[in-house]
This record gives sequence, C-alpha cells and structure tokens, in this order.
Amino acid sequence: MAVHHFQPEHYHNTIGAHEPVLKIADGDTVVTSTVDARGWDHRGESAAGRGNPMTGPFYVEGAQPGDTLAVRLESMVPSRAWGWTFNVLAPNVVDPNAAAALPPPEIVRWSVGTEQALVALEKPTPGLAGLKLEARPFLGCFGVAPPKDQAISTATSGEYGGNMDYKGLVAGVTVYFPVFAEGALFFLGDGHAVQGCGEIVGTGVEISLDVRFTVRVLKGKTIGWPRGESDTHWFCIGNARPLDQALQHATTEMLSLLTKDFGLTASEASLLLGQAVEYEVANVFNPAYSVVCKVPKAVLSML
Amino acid sequence: MAVHHFQPEHYHNTIGAHEPVLKIADGDTVVTSTVDARGWDHRGESAAGRGNPMTGPFYVEGAQPGDTLAVRLESMVPSRAWGWTFNVLAPNVVDPNAAAALPPPEIVRWSVGTEQALVALEKPTPGLAGLKLEARPFLGCFGVAPPKDQAISTATSGEYGGNMDYKGLVAGVTVYFPVFAEGALFFLGDGHAVQGCGEIVGTGVEISLDVRFTVRVLKGKTIGWPRGESDTHWFCIGNARPLDQALQHATTEMLSLLTKDFGLTASEASLLLGQAVEYEVANVFNPAYSVVCKVPKAVLSML
Amino acid sequence: MAVHHFQPEHYHNTIGAHEPVLKIADGDTVVTSTVDARGWDHRGESAAGRGNPMTGPFYVEGAQPGDTLAVRLESMVPSRAWGWTFNVLAPNVVDPNAAAALPPPEIVRWSVGTEQALVALEKPTPGLAGLKLEARPFLGCFGVAPPKDQAISTATSGEYGGNMDYKGLVAGVTVYFPVFAEGALFFLGDGHAVQGCGEIVGTGVEISLDVRFTVRVLKGKTIGWPRGESDTHWFCIGNARPLDQALQHATTEMLSLLTKDFGLTASEASLLLGQAVEYEVANVFNPAYSVVCKVPKAVLSML
Amino acid sequence: MAVHHFQPEHYHNTIGAHEPVLKIADGDTVVTSTVDARGWDHRGESAAGRGNPMTGPFYVEGAQPGDTLAVRLESMVPSRAWGWTFNVLAPNVVDPNAAAALPPPEIVRWSVGTEQALVALEKPTPGLAGLKLEARPFLGCFGVAPPKDQAISTATSGEYGGNMDYKGLVAGVTVYFPVFAEGALFFLGDGHAVQGCGEIVGTGVEISLDVRFTVRVLKGKTIGWPRGESDTHWFCIGNARPLDQALQHATTEMLSLLTKDFGLTASEASLLLGQAVEYEVANVFNPAYSVVCKVPKAVLSML
Repeated sequence: MAVHHFQPEHYHNTIGAHEPVLKIADGDTVVTSTVDARGWDHRGESAAGRGNPMTGPFYVEGAQPGDTLAVRLESMVPSRAWGWTFNVLAPNVVDPNAAAALPPPEIVRWSVGTEQALVALEKPTPGLAGLKLEARPFLGCFGVAPPKDQAISTATSGEYGGNMDYKGLVAGVTVYFPVFAEGALFFLGDGHAVQGCGEIVGTGVEISLDVRFTVRVLKGKTIGWPRGESDTHWFCIGNARPLDQALQHATTEMLSLLTKDFGLTASEASLLLGQAVEYEVANVFNPAYSVVCKVPKAVLSML
Repeated sequence: MAVHHFQPEHYHNTIGAHEPVLKIADGDTVVTSTVDARGWDHRGESAAGRGNPMTGPFYVEGAQPGDTLAVRLESMVPSRAWGWTFNVLAPNVVDPNAAAALPPPEIVRWSVGTEQALVALEKPTPGLAGLKLEARPFLGCFGVAPPKDQAISTATSGEYGGNMDYKGLVAGVTVYFPVFAEGALFFLGDGHAVQGCGEIVGTGVEISLDVRFTVRVLKGKTIGWPRGESDTHWFCIGNARPLDQALQHATTEMLSLLTKDFGLTASEASLLLGQAVEYEVANVFNPAYSVVCKVPKAVLSML
Repeated sequence: MAVHHFQPEHYHNTIGAHEPVLKIADGDTVVTSTVDARGWDHRGESAAGRGNPMTGPFYVEGAQPGDTLAVRLESMVPSRAWGWTFNVLAPNVVDPNAAAALPPPEIVRWSVGTEQALVALEKPTPGLAGLKLEARPFLGCFGVAPPKDQAISTATSGEYGGNMDYKGLVAGVTVYFPVFAEGALFFLGDGHAVQGCGEIVGTGVEISLDVRFTVRVLKGKTIGWPRGESDTHWFCIGNARPLDQALQHATTEMLSLLTKDFGLTASEASLLLGQAVEYEVANVFNPAYSVVCKVPKAVLSML
Repeated sequence: MAVHHFQPEHYHNTIGAHEPVLKIADGDTVVTSTVDARGWDHRGESAAGRGNPMTGPFYVEGAQPGDTLAVRLESMVPSRAWGWTFNVLAPNVVDPNAAAALPPPEIVRWSVGTEQALVALEKPTPGLAGLKLEARPFLGCFGVAPPKDQAISTATSGEYGGNMDYKGLVAGVTVYFPVFAEGALFFLGDGHAVQGCGEIVGTGVEISLDVRFTVRVLKGKTIGWPRGESDTHWFCIGNARPLDQALQHATTEMLSLLTKDFGLTASEASLLLGQAVEYEVANVFNPAYSVVCKVPKAVLSML
C-alpha cells in the first residue's frame, strides 16, 4: 500500500498503450498533478500540447484484460488561483436558427479561491457582478487504455473512459473501469474547478490540479462501461452520440449492475429503475456525449 | 378569484380546440379530478378510453394567442390506494442487443399509502421485498390547445405541453404555457404517484388524482416552450425526438428566459449556464422525448 | 369508375377528420388542382393560408379503419410557368459551426417550361447561368386522416402520410396509405416541379399543380406506413425524427411487406435486403424526417 | 510511375501510424491483395485476426499533413469463389419492438461467379431460390492514418476514411482523403462482392480481393472529409452517429467542394444542392454511420 509521489515530465494527447510512467501495485496511492485542457500548468505556463494532455499512464500490477480497475479519487485540489472558460453556448446545444445568432466565443478567466473555494469571473460584466459558484473540482478526462491497442484522442471517450466531463466525479467517488490492456494503463487530466451539466460552453472552469488517488484491481470482475460509487449513488456512464445512444449504454450497464451485482431479475431491476432512476447529462459537447444512469443507495439499501 | 369545483363527465384523448367544459376567469382556482392513463377512475372503474384521457378543456377568459398561461399546481392527491406500472424497461432505453433479451412486459400493481405516502409493490418479489418509495404525485400530461387548430394525441407533446411525463411538476410548482388559442383551453390528466427520470418502463405509478390549480393570464408575455418555477429552480421544457433536439429546445428557451426576463446578454447567459445549468431527462419513452433545462434560484438570486 | 372533376374552393392546413368535399367510390378517378405551399394558385394569387394548404378531403366509400387506400398518381402537371425556392441550406443539414456562416435565406423564382419541361432560375447568377433541370413534378404533402381523430399540421408527417416531400412520388406511382378514419379522407397539395433529395433548402420548386388520381380500397389489408410501387421498385416510407428512426420505421415496414406480401421468412427477407436494399432521404427538413426503403422489382421478380 | 506488386505478410486491425510496408511515389500503382473481414484469405484460410484486417500501410512519398491523397481504384477482383454474410437484420435498423422478434443471426455462404460475376446463396432456401445479384466488388474499409497519432479500430470510421462500407466505391472511382500523417499511410481491406445500402445485416458478401490502385498527392490541397469522383458524380462522405450528423458532415464538405473547387457562392451552391442533391446511406451499422452527399456531373457540367 505504497504512496507514490509522481511529478509528470511529459504528457499524452491520446489514451493508448503508451510507455508507463510508473508501475504501481494493487492498493497503492499516487499523488500527482495535472495540467489544464490547453496544457497550462500550476504557474499558468505551457507544459504540454493542447487538447487535454494526460498525466500517465500508470501501470497497475496484476491488472489484466477482463478485470476491473477501481480508482478512488481521494482529492483533487486546484493548483493555481484561476481557470478559464469559453463564454458562448456551443452551437449544437441550441436550436440551429438560434445558433446563428450567437456571438463568436472568447476565452474568459475566472478566479478560484483557495480558502473559501468560490469561483467568480475575474472581470465580471454588470449582469454577472454577483456570481460566485462553489468550487467542485473534478477530472474531465481520465481512464484506461482502450481495447484492441487503439490510441484515441483525449477529445473523446468510450467504454474505457476518456473525456467524459462528468461533474459528479468529485473527491470521495470511486470510479470503476473495464481493463483492456495489461496493467490497465491509467491516465488522468483536464481538471475543472466547477462545471454545469453538459459542458455546454465547451469547457468547465479549466484548471491545473493536484490529485491523489488509490487503485484496486478487481480480478475476474468484468464490466462494460465506467461505473462509479459516491456516498449517495451507484452510477454507470455511457459515452456515445447521440444522447439517446449514450443513455442506452448507461442504462444497459446499470441493468447489468443490478442483475449481476445486486441479484435482481431483469423485471425487478426494471421495476426499480422505472420508479427510482436518475439521469445526468455529463457532456453534450464532445465527439462522444456522456450520460450517467444513477440509482440512490437509499433505494438500494432497502433491498 | 372564484374557486370552481368541477366534476368531469367526459374526457378527451386529443388536446385541441374542443368545446370548453368550464369558463374561468384570470386568477380563478379549479378543484377537479383526473382518471389514470387507461381511463380508470378513483374506484378503479373504466371512465374513459385508453391513452391519457384528459379532463377539460378549461377556457380562461382573456387568454389570447401570444399570451402566456400560468398554472399553479396547488395540490395533486391520489384518489385511490393503488397504481400500476409496466415491469420491463422499454426497448429503446437499452442497447438494441440487450432489448432482445428482455422479457415481455406485464402490468404490476403498487399500493399507494394515503397517510404515509409510501408506494410499494402489492405483491413484491423476493428481490424487491423492502422497496418503499416516497410518493411524489404529478400530472404526466397537461397543457393548452396547440397552434393552428391542431388536435394532437395525448400520447405525445410539443410546445403546447402534453405528455411530458416530467416528475418535477409536483404541487407547489407553477407551469407557464404559451397560449395558441382563444381561452388557452387547458387540459390535464395522466397522474403518477411517483416516477423515476425518463419514464423508462413506459409508465410512472399510474393513478387517478384529485387536483387543485389556479390560473393566471400573462397578457402580452410570449414564450416558446413550457417553463416552470419551483421553490428552488427556474426551468424550461423541450419536447422532441431525439433527446438532442429536446435539449436544444429547452436550452434555447432558457437562453430566452435569461436574456429577456433576467436582462443578461447572450454571453452572460452562456457563462452562467455553462457553469450552473442542470438537465433532467423527463421522458425518453413517448413519441416526443422531454428534456428539462434548469437553473437554481440560488444562482439567479446572486445577479 | 366515374371521373370526377373537382374545383377546390377552400383548403385545409391540417390533415384530419374535416368535412369531405366529395364522396367518391372505390375505383373512381379525380381530376383536381392544388395551390402551392404558400397558397398561391395557378395565377400566382393567394387562394389559401400559408403552410401547405390541402385540397380535399375526398371521402372514399367503403374505406374503413384497418383497410388500405391505394392512390394511383395518374398525372401531376404544373399549372403555371414559375415556382419558387429558398436559396440557402437549412441550418440543420450542415455542421453547427458551418450553419452560422450561411447568409439569411431569400425567396428565388424559377421558370418552369411547359413544352420542354425544364426548370431554370428566372434571374440566374453568373455561377448558375447554365443550370437547367428536368421537371419531375410531385406532391410534397398528401395522405389520409390520421388515427385517433387527430388533426395534424401539414408541416409534418406520420404513418398517415402528410408532408413527406419525397421526390419519388411522381406520375405513374401508386401510393398505399393505412386507413384510420371512415372514408379514409384523402388530402393533397404542396406541389413541387422538381426537388433534390432531402428538401435541404426547405423547399422544392414550389408550384401549383393539376392532378389526376385514381383510388382503390384494399379491404382488410392492413399496413403500418405509406408504401409505394413504381415501375422499378417497391418502397416503404418512414416519417420521424431523427433520420435513424425514420429509417427504422421504413425498414420495419419493408420487412413486413416482404414477409407478409411476398411470403419470405424474416431471415430470407433479411438476406435479400442486406444485399439489395436502397434508401432515399426524402426530407431532412420538416418536423418529421422521411426515409424511403426500396427494393428493385428486378430483384423481387427472381423470387 | 512504377507498378509495385505487394504480397502482404501481416495485417493491422487499427488504422494508425504503423510501420509502412512499402514506400511508393506520387503516381505509382500498387497491385496487392486483401483478406476478408474475418481475416480469411483467397484460400479461405485464416491469415489475420478478426475485425477488418488491413493490408498496408503504404507510405506515399511527398504526402504531408494538409495535402490530399487521391486513390484511383483501378480494379477490385474477388480472389475466391465464395463470400459470407449474416442472415438477419441488425437490431438497430428496425423498430425496437420488431428487433425483439428477429431470430439470432447466423453466417451464410454465397457463391461468387468468376465469369458471369453473379452472387447467389450456396444453399438457397425456397423463398430465395432464384436470387442472383450482379457482383459489384468494393473495399469496405480503407483510408489513411488519422490525425493526432491516433490508432483507431477498423470497426469504425472518421474524416480519415476507415470502415465506411460504401457500395459506391467500385472500380473506376477515385477517392480523396485528407492527409494527417507524413506519407499519408494508406490502408485497405474488408472487400465485399456486393452489398445493399446501409450494410443492414452487418456485412456485405465478405470476400478476399485482388486490388490495383494508383495514388496521387495533391500538394497544398486541404479537404475535410473523404471525397470521391465516379463517371457520373462528385460525392462527399460523412462518418458519424447518428445519421443526421453524418449527413451534416457530408453536406458541409459538399458545400466546401462547390464553393472552393467550383467557385460557387454559398447561395448558388445551396440552390444547386436544394434541387439536385442525392444522398446515399452507406452504412447504418458500424459505430460511425456513413452518409454520402452526391451531385451529378451532368448538372455540374452545365455550370
């Protein structure tokens, strides 16, 4: 149960079977850092190429294809006092006619408080003068090497994780990934200080992070899509376009979770989901959209 | 500000410019009842044809095309002690290959407590023996006469409302509809004792309701899609297939709400939505899906 | 087998159970006329309200719900020497970012030759000086009263037909509609002198038409979606959004046609379709898109 | 203008920056062979792993990112006398309820004539006893290394080409690919003896091919998506899910072709496309669907 302190020196813009930066054991903890979506580090200096540069990959000993890698997100702390976003809705989230009327997007900076953890525009316009949002830092893009020796751009996502931009993946959550390559090869990056559902301006408040996480290998446990567990929910993430298909993947994985892990029949799982399921639109911006299918633990604990 | 007690004697399976059952004034309250999605009333007897039979329409004096009708949902109380659902996921919410493996759906009855307001299976299977859900009654299908003298099946929905099946439309919420016909012509029905997001087994816990609501006419106020206001959120509902388009409609309407009603610029509205928006999948089962775009009042109150 | 000459005096902007303008018998022929999508008649004068005003409905004696109405399109001839189109791609048929760069659309007039049947811009710009297209007149919007006593805007389409804008529905084709109302109640309008696939500028060359058609009632023959038969193909039309669902409807109906009408097993129909099916995108502009699933008669004649 | 005879010894199941098997010059011709989608060669023996194993990559001297690679398909000839298909429609091409009623798919063999070039079932069932289809061999999967050093499964496709399964890419057609990597790195495989639109049983008649092609580098010519030119049409291919987005990509690329290569304004291109465009659904089965936007050369030659 070692704790590794790892300082990245290079980054990857694809998730694939790249040379591991560190080999760690089942149960180990890693303390490391990530640069932001454009490669800007904790000093605001360019440390990597644009497009969600990843820290890693971390090779987890014992992880084999067909296993599951559990990653407990111990902490994600902004490592600088500002982040940035775009300032115009993405054209695909409004009606086509409305999209034509939107102004061209620009980059805007937000201050990110360290003590009070509030996020506010550095130069607020009159309409948003009082806007202060609670920071809820999370990793926008992380996951394991994809199947079939692919190396896939960190712009998108799939069953291996990737650029899901799900705001629910905050500290305290455990995320489960299907393992497709020996050692799993875990990558992480693209920190956000806060974000709404859907990443509908194309960014969260993009920021560099200090991250601490712990891995576990679930030998012989096979899953189809990323799953997660928070204090309050079990959830499954589907990544695809359109939203309808992402929702299908997430719901199918939840059906599998309820029948295989909780022992329900398909009909029991359906009855429970029909009256208790929750969905979140994690991102509706990236090449693959992400939908999260959630069930409250309060409901599951009644079973 | 009269209070009308209205006992329906016939029902409509389309929403359109049907003969009003009652003329009411701006500010009036109506106390009435609805049968369930199959037309079964508070005694469990068939009182209307299948397919979301509607109580109404109520003609609201003074409402003209181009106005907005505000409907405050004062109370919705189950009028019998049981509801029903299907017991299998709809084939369109899981992966096509997984759909083929699902059993054929059957109707299952749930008891709906009157005092403790708990919803539980009448004949629970072993896996769901302990399942008890808090009742949160709402109207699955309601709205006003659609544009262009259409009469549209209560299976679907549009900018006039209709079969949105949004579980957030509970007592205490005010819903705003664009008015397309003289008198607005308000319909209501399809009560649910409780439901998860998306109505993914094709039903909530379908039940007859006693309903009390109050109308207001917002003269000269023109909106594009149903909007709503709860204690905690402003929200807009988009109804269309696929989910992507429903989300576009809802987000476009929210952009309109923030710019016209809250005075933000398009860029300010984008900045706020980008980091604070929430989405709900109201239904992913009906011919038109429904997506809700929400903004917390706690955020809006900072502006 | 009477031939009726019918001169319309009013038009409908919804398809529904309106008062018949004429009762005709099984086997009868009707000679009538249609105004264009904006209600402009053969003199170019406004004869009806905007939005695909319909001639009809024609009540076909003996047609009952569950039957099929066959409509043979004997001839469709432009009744004036010009038509009109928009001149910019609809924003939903290009990438969202490309849509923002398109100019605002305007109406442009085309000359429609009567002898040589060529369609050309009235005021060609330099780049299109030589453009002359062969006229292929067809009805953009036609069909029968929809199910459940609905009255649905002629902007959209469904299993009853409607605004399908399919350029393959030219003279010589027989179209089959499911009957949902007594007398079927057949409507027609929205003539186009020519059109590409998809109606991607939002119009064909919109024009008034003289139309001759013959009806037949197929008693006890039940179909799910409009079907058609040309000299070369059998085809089925699915109307829905998105294209994926329209294609599903069309393919499902073709599977039904091949198994029920041609006696193939599901696997035989699949083998045939897999290697011989053709698809056309009829419209990708209206509220419901239309996709056509076609099988060559040359292939079917081998069976 | 050398002619290279290349006999593959290994194959790739991803398209990416793999070690070139041959360096060729601008203008050179290659004569080579491909195995089928499951890796079965001209003798029907397993020569490569499942999932569209690719011959190549061929490094084309002088090709740089930002250029275009033109590949003229000189000939594609089946190298064995049989192919195979699945025998049941894919569940995603029919309505979800209809999908559940389909039998499980099996592999079926077809004979592929060498002299008369007819394709027929080896063991025809009674319903398909007479079915004989003309062979129209094409490559289902081919293209160049994708952007950003990705290596992407040959199951899918993108702006670099890949598994497009477009039946129009027959001998005589020239295909244009955007170049993303030095040397372009051209791959080819997944031959089909014949196929309907959409690849709706999940396969064409899968077969090994002898292929002859010629490359040209268009220096400084930058395109966004694969384009092609046959005797009769110019066309552009969009690859994405859902069909709506694939169609948007294809139409946007065609707009670019007409404005940049043919010198039309956006409005002129719109007018032409609106009344003359054709679409084909190349595949509606793979992870990315493919839609083809076509314009007849007969129309373009009038300009």
